[in-house]
Amino acid sequence: MADRPRTRLHIDAPFAAGQSAALSGDQAHYLRGVLRQTPGDRLLAFNEAGGEWLADIATLAKSAGTVTLLEQVRAPAAAGPDIWLLFAPLKGGRTEYVVEKATELGAARLCPVLTRRGDVPRVNLDRLRANAVEAAEQCERLSVPVVEPLADLAAVLARWPADPLTQDRPLFVAAETGAARPLAAAVTAATASGGKAAFLVGPEGGFHPDELDRLAKTPFVVPVGLGPRILRADTAAFAVLAVWQALTGDWTAAPGEDARPPFR
Amino acid sequence: MADRPRTRLHIDAPFAAGQSAALSGDQAHYLRGVLRQTPGDRLLAFNEAGGEWLADIATLAKSAGTVTLLEQVRAPAAAGPDIWLLFAPLKGGRTEYVVEKATELGAARLCPVLTRRGDVPRVNLDRLRANAVEAAEQCERLSVPVVEPLADLAAVLARWPADPLTQDRPLFVAAETGAARPLAAAVTAATASGGKAAFLVGPEGGFHPDELDRLAKTPFVVPVGLGPRILRADTAAFAVLAVWQALTGDWTAAPGEDARPPFR
Repeated sequence: MADRPRTRLHIDAPFAAGQSAALSGDQAHYLRGVLRQTPGDRLLAFNEAGGEWLADIATLAKSAGTVTLLEQVRAPAAAGPDIWLLFAPLKGGRTEYVVEKATELGAARLCPVLTRRGDVPRVNLDRLRANAVEAAEQCERLSVPVVEPLADLAAVLARWPADPLTQDRPLFVAAETGAARPLAAAVTAATASGGKAAFLVGPEGGFHPDELDRLAKTPFVVPVGLGPRILRADTAAFAVLAVWQALTGDWTAAPGEDARPPFR
Repeated sequence: MADRPRTRLHIDAPFAAGQSAALSGDQAHYLRGVLRQTPGDRLLAFNEAGGEWLADIATLAKSAGTVTLLEQVRAPAAAGPDIWLLFAPLKGGRTEYVVEKATELGAARLCPVLTRRGDVPRVNLDRLRANAVEAAEQCERLSVPVVEPLADLAAVLARWPADPLTQDRPLFVAAETGAARPLAAAVTAATASGGKAAFLVGPEGGFHPDELDRLAKTPFVVPVGLGPRILRADTAAFAVLAVWQALTGDWTAAPGEDARPPFR
């Protein structure tokens, strides 16, 4: 069987054999300027609806190009675990790192939230979405997580019970102190309730006491404990997602039981 | 009760009330030059044997200083989970990040290993040890993980069965493909065997086929699967440690059941 092309690009277009699909300006620049590729070179194109396709580069200019889809190599997958990560943006490149890791760890939706003690009051949404696409390309996901605009935590909590996407979705909050269930026990108990969930990780400085009061009184909130050490916010985010996947998500199958790309 | 001092330093000296302990040159520089502290200011000093103590700065010069130990605020803890992380050094600051996260996640020992496809052939051991100390200071550990010098993977495997520290210690290897047990199932099964373990995470390019053959034939190696996505090496390291802690390590107690610092 042919070698698997090393380049894997998310292309948001309908896929069919012989069909042409446009590259974004950034993708064309990357293929031409960074990878020194030329028309005729092979790559893999993927998106959630179309699956993964072998394609070749048809045209390639400085900031535009097209590929021709040749053959489907991986069928669209059933939707992955329906887990969301709500997180306060972090300083020093750690927000981008959280987006990268949460994408690899299979989060379906990433929601930056503004908290009272969050010391990063804005996010570059285009950049975070690009981080998510890039991580999806690298980790062989077919889907790219939805990255939402920054929203105020209080507003998010207020609309949670009425929004069809969030109602009946437990919100696990990483708690440093107070009454909380150990993470594994909380996750296992939640499995019975349908398998959709959201995790909220606060800012480095922790939640404001008013936020903690609000969270404690909120019926869909489940405080979870992550052990005796004080984890940095990014560590807590990786941990809750990994433990969820291992206990009740798509890590419960052995490798090889999933739909693997045929080139490996 | 008095406010908990925000500065927490690992000081490797015997602790007793009234005793004086020397700061390192870096610690003195940090306290004086960065935090603008002066004699009389309070801090927390900790180490594994002595626990955590309230201390005040007795003398402070440009690159030297002493503290006086006042009162123990946290007794030495029982040894934490006996888990080790073996990892191929990574590019672009990710090795430091792995050390930071593994410290927060409670690893007892960190072992950089040289693999055939590892593209970082050396580590700055002093820097990694400083990263581990800094992370221990931040996450309220009493112990600092041992950081070993870089060692060749083949040599590590060869001496594993004979070394008292490693014999009877299963080595879980994060596997991208092939016969592997799902991580949670493997971790749970290992609990019965005494609770000590090591995890090995390969380089970004994966293990060389010869290494995979060797690992497959090694009786103490347990290949574990981390789901259908291809995780970056750092993500895999965080994931195995978090899942271990959640399922069988010290995250199984609720917060508050552990020995918490009394200021919180």
